[in-house]
Parts: sequence; structure tokens; C-alpha cells
Amino acid sequence: MKKQRLFTPGPTMVPEDVLLEMARPQQHHRTAEFREMFKEVTELLGYLFQTKGTCLTLTGSGTAAGEAAIVSCCPPGKGHKVLCCHGGKFGERWAEICAAFDIPHAKYDFEWGSGAKPDVIDKMLAEDKDIDTLTVVHSETCSSSLSDIEAISKVAKKHGAMLIVDGITAVGAIPVKVDEWGIDVYFTGSQKALMLPPGLAFLAVSDAAWTRIDAGSGHQYYNNLKKFRKSLANNDTPYTPNNQLIRGLQSVLRRIREEGLESIWFHTSLNARATRAAIAAMDLQLFAADPVDSVTGIVLPEGVDEPVLRKTMRQKFGMQIAGGQGHIKGKVVRISHMGYCDSFDTLSVISALELVLHAQGHKLTLGAGLAAAQTVFAESYEKM
Amino acid sequence: MKKQRLFTPGPTMVPEDVLLEMARPQQHHRTAEFREMFKEVTELLGYLFQTKGTCLTLTGSGTAAGEAAIVSCCPPGKGHKVLCCHGGKFGERWAEICAAFDIPHAKYDFEWGSGAKPDVIDKMLAEDKDIDTLTVVHSETCSSSLSDIEAISKVAKKHGAMLIVDGITAVGAIPVKVDEWGIDVYFTGSQKALMLPPGLAFLAVSDAAWTRIDAGSGHQYYNNLKKFRKSLANNDTPYTPNNQLIRGLQSVLRRIREEGLESIWFHTSLNARATRAAIAAMDLQLFAADPVDSVTGIVLPEGVDEPVLRKTMRQKFGMQIAGGQGHIKGKVVRISHMGYCDSFDTLSVISALELVLHAQGHKLTLGAGLAAAQTVFAESYEKM
Repeated sequence: MKKQRLFTPGPTMVPEDVLLEMARPQQHHRTAEFREMFKEVTELLGYLFQTKGTCLTLTGSGTAAGEAAIVSCCPPGKGHKVLCCHGGKFGERWAEICAAFDIPHAKYDFEWGSGAKPDVIDKMLAEDKDIDTLTVVHSETCSSSLSDIEAISKVAKKHGAMLIVDGITAVGAIPVKVDEWGIDVYFTGSQKALMLPPGLAFLAVSDAAWTRIDAGSGHQYYNNLKKFRKSLANNDTPYTPNNQLIRGLQSVLRRIREEGLESIWFHTSLNARATRAAIAAMDLQLFAADPVDSVTGIVLPEGVDEPVLRKTMRQKFGMQIAGGQGHIKGKVVRISHMGYCDSFDTLSVISALELVLHAQGHKLTLGAGLAAAQTVFAESYEKM
Repeated sequence: MKKQRLFTPGPTMVPEDVLLEMARPQQHHRTAEFREMFKEVTELLGYLFQTKGTCLTLTGSGTAAGEAAIVSCCPPGKGHKVLCCHGGKFGERWAEICAAFDIPHAKYDFEWGSGAKPDVIDKMLAEDKDIDTLTVVHSETCSSSLSDIEAISKVAKKHGAMLIVDGITAVGAIPVKVDEWGIDVYFTGSQKALMLPPGLAFLAVSDAAWTRIDAGSGHQYYNNLKKFRKSLANNDTPYTPNNQLIRGLQSVLRRIREEGLESIWFHTSLNARATRAAIAAMDLQLFAADPVDSVTGIVLPEGVDEPVLRKTMRQKFGMQIAGGQGHIKGKVVRISHMGYCDSFDTLSVISALELVLHAQGHKLTLGAGLAAAQTVFAESYEKM
């Protein structure tokens, strides 16, 4: 009677009550009921992003939100230039979007596993006065690494640059304080810490960003943020929204509001710390030099066959974990701690990983990883 | 984002696809579709019980099936006398039914935690020639103990006594071979290893039992097995069946047929063995002298507050385990291994128990229970 457990860093497991909510009969979206729901959801997104700015909901994935942010904030003919900071595939995507829309841009290409360094950004902004916009990934999913957005925002402010942050695997998992940190545009998708299927993207847009956006128009129609802002005045969307997911979102955001972000951040961090302790106890290496709490990247030891390991985890134990991407494909596996994944799920995936590695010949003390994780839990028992 | 996990020895966790099956629109039961489904379910029950005898489905709980079996097999005025073997609350129930229906009976009252001993039964049957019927509990849920039904059946045969077995927490969890062992009537309920909500009861009735049943009529109407047999000839039921649960049952029995009983018995046993290894590693005592693999009873150490322990398990970790019943209430907790509960669920409940006991001041090495369980899993890795 095998169970299925999903530990990929998106999509993540969807809570049963949210699945049931989304299984309710389809409703039309041009109704007072939809607008009431959308109003509530928009207010709750303000809590999620910790902002009094505009919160927009797009029907699309996180990439749609990133494109909307960059193209909207850099209208042509206004002399904008973007510094795209990347140490992983998702960061690279924002540079690809600049290229696709002919937006002048430079690249800060740093090592996978590290976060973007504020002092390097400071230097690059000082050296190229044309740069007035930054794209930074808060949690780089592919390299399981964290950038210090609070510190980077201070550097951006110092140089008068606008800061656009990809928070796709950050918001709802690790601390994100859009207003307090002074972030201009922050965006995410539905299928990560928001515990929903893919299909929705969300942006928090500051007043400063709107000033830029209102100054011109880029090559965009569907992802035109001005249209979304206009519809939002009537608690509505410019195009047909995925209202099934919005209903699920209402359920998820109420849950998040009820539990409280501080508690969610704590539990995500607890499970990440337990996993890192388990990895050390299993004589494995962490991939990231600056590890993020939403996803853990593990370097596989010599002789362990990554495709066989993941296939075994899935077929034998019903557990899906992610492999590496790009140049670390085959060398790294990644485990998510986001959303509807509790400490006992975390123990389960540690156990399965230990069993498969042991069977593949990696030398470890059976149960050592579990015991290390259990000790981390016991240390935080009162807050669990 | 707390999850709920159910480890009570019934009801047990229901698989998601079975829940979905039961969420389909209600159908009427006097239809060809129902009869086709009921025919399939009845055939699959034959596989479950390992019998070519008659398999009946009652809308009621396990107690209804026990009453139906005893009262049907001991029609008044035929000189029947029952030996009720009990070492726990559920065994006692069958004596209470004899009393309620004025059926002559004797009692073999043995220690909780032990199984019924074939040699004692042999002696009692030899000493009281009036006894021609035995009631025995295969897996006594309240004392987490096992009786050797195969051996007891041989003793019953030797004395020409009919054997009625309560297999409520046995069938679908531990080996049950109704025909091979020569059991006359064997019964169970839906909410244990069959992974369904409560509400259905099932009986396997042998030809020898039918001869007895046909010899007279007891004080029964709703639970009259002859009516059920008559309707079954038309793949139907005499009274309105719980057809939502029968639909769920079809889904569950197909799953069991597909996985195979041998595999299910192995996994239930594996999780029970892992739990017993964990208990030993946590310096805890097993309650049962003859432990059964479907449920594990654990004696709590001095100073551990059982209601607080279970309340904490539930409120803090979302896990429901059972307390003790009768004279062991407050002294014992019980954890189920039946049905939709895999090895990682088993690790989860061991982890939570370890954490709560540790917090309550019981001296243990954190993770020792988990490591002991993990070692049991690793030893059976190939068959997991």
C-alpha cells in the first residue's frame, strides 16, 4: 500500500482540504462572488509579501510574472539598463528575457551555490552608471542557494537602482519583507511554498515601480501590468483568470494567515536544518556554499548512480526528489522543504535516501541521518 | 502546515483514490450496475479470506457479523454450547452475545496479551462434551495479541467443534487461510486492514456452517445469514446496502488483489517488527506476550502521563494513536500497522513518540528508536 510523497522544489504537495476546495463545481468569474473572493485573495497576498503595495495575480507561471516585471519596468526609449545577477538557471532566465525584448543589460555571473554578493553588485553599479535596474533571485532553486536581498536592496538604493526580485521559491518559505526591505517588484508562482498546482503567478509592485511602468509601454499585451492594475480597481482581472486555482489560493492564504508567516518560516528552516544535519551524519556534502532553507541540494558521493537513485526512490518508495540541472545534472539531488511538507515527511525522505544510498554501496551508519535530524527536532521541541 | 496521520487500530487511513471513488455521485442499488459490482466484490472477498465458501457483506460493523455468526450457528433447541475464548474486550463481546441470546456457553478467560492456547482448549473440550462451538479472536485488538488459529482449528476438528473466528484486525493484515485451516465462520469489518470507513462487515461461511445454520432459526432478522445467502444468488442484498462503502470496497479489494496478500502480510509484519525493534531501543516494554503484527501495544514507563502523551501526539504532531482499554487504560498505548500505513508512516509515529517521551522526561537516546527501525528496513530492503 505504497504512498506517494512529493519532494521536488515545485510542484509541491497540495493539502487535502485545498484539493477538495478546488474540486467544487466551476463558477463563472465575472460575478460578485468572484470579485469578493479576489478582493480577499489580494489583501492576503499583501500579508504574504509583507507589503502595502499593489498585489497582482496573473494566470501563468512564475516566468510570466518575471517577464511582466522586467518588460514593464524597462519601457523602451527611456535609457534603462538591467544588471542580471545569476548563479543558476533561473537567474539566467531574466537575462534571456532582456535579450528577447532588446532591453540593454549586463550580467553578474557568479558561482552556482553562492548567493549574489552585495559588495560585487555595489562595485558593478559604481562602474556602470547606465545600470538602473537589478534582477536578483532570492532563492535559486537549481543551486539551492540564498541571496541576501535585504543587503542587496540597500546597495540598490545607494545607487538609485530599481530592484526586481524573483522570489519563486522564497516567499511563503523563508523571510520576505517587501516594504521593510524596500523591494520594488517581487514575484512568485503558485506551485512552490503556496502549495498549489502550477498556473498562477503573483507580483508585489511598489509605487516607485509604478512610476517607471507608467512612463512608457514595452512590447507586451497579456502580461501588461497596467491592465492588471486597472482591473484590480474593480477586484477583477483583464483576461480570464484560472479561478479554480484562485479558489485554492484563497484556502491556502487563509491557512497561511492563520498559522502566521513566522511559524511557517520557522518550520521550513527547522526541516532544512534537520536535513543538513542528516546529510552531514550520512557523510554527504551540501551543494550550496550559501544554502537556502526552501530546498536542499546534496552532492552525491562517487559511485552513486543518480538516475538509479531517483528512480529507486520513486518506484520503490513512492518519493519524488529532483536531480541537478545544467552542469550539475547527475551530480546533485534536491529536496524541497516548502509548503505542505512537515518534519515527518522530512524524516521519511531522509530514511529513503539513507536506505537507497546504503543499498547502492555508500558507506553510512544506518539511522545516523535520522538520529541527527531527530536531535535537531528535539532541540526545537517547544516550537514544533 | 500540520498533517494528520491516523495510527489507531481502526478506523485506519483511507487511500486517496478510494476516498475519491466514494465521492462519486450516489447510485441506486437495485440496478444491474450494482449487482455487477457486488458480484466482483464477493469474488474478491473469496481471495481475501482465501476461501471457496460463501462470502457475505452486511451493512453494519464487525459486531453485527459476530452476532450473525454466533446466533445463526447456534439455533435454539439443538443443544449447542459455545466455548468463548477471551483475553480481551473483543473476545468478551462474543460471550456477551451468547448471554443476550440465551445461548449456553462456557468461558476460557486467559491473560490479556496472550493468545488462546490450543492445549487449554483441547482440555476444556475434552472435559465438557456439551461444547460444540468455539469463538476465538484471531488478533485481539485491545491486547495487541495473536492466537494461533491454525492450531486451534486442529483442536476443534479433533473434538468435532465448530470454529467461529473474529478476524476483525487480522484479515488483510496477517496470514488468514480460511479453507486451508478449516475455519467454519470467519468475519471482519471494513475499518481495519480494509482501509475503509466503518459500516460494512464481512463473513466467510463454510458448507459445514451452513448445515448448522439451515438446521434452525435463532432470534434474528436483520443479521439473518440465510437471507443474505438467498439475495447473494442474485448478486444482491436483502436490505439496503451501504453502496458508497461497497464502491470503496471494490477499489480496495482490487488494490489488494493487485498487490497480493503475501506482499501485504510481509509489509505489515515488517512495520510491526520495526516498531518492536524501536520500542526495545527506546527502553520500552511490549505489552503482549504473543504480539500480533497488526497492532503494537506499548507499556508506558513509570512517570509518563498517558492522556498527556496522546493529547500531545495529536495536537502537536497531528498523530492519533490509541490508549489502553479496560484494566490497562492509562498504562498502554497502541499503534496500528494495518492498511494504508507504510514504513515511513511507521517511522513518523516512532519519531513523534520518541520526541514526546523525551520531552516528558523518559530517558532515551534520541534517534535510537528510529535507527533500530531503519536497520529492520535495511535488512528487508530487497522486499520493501
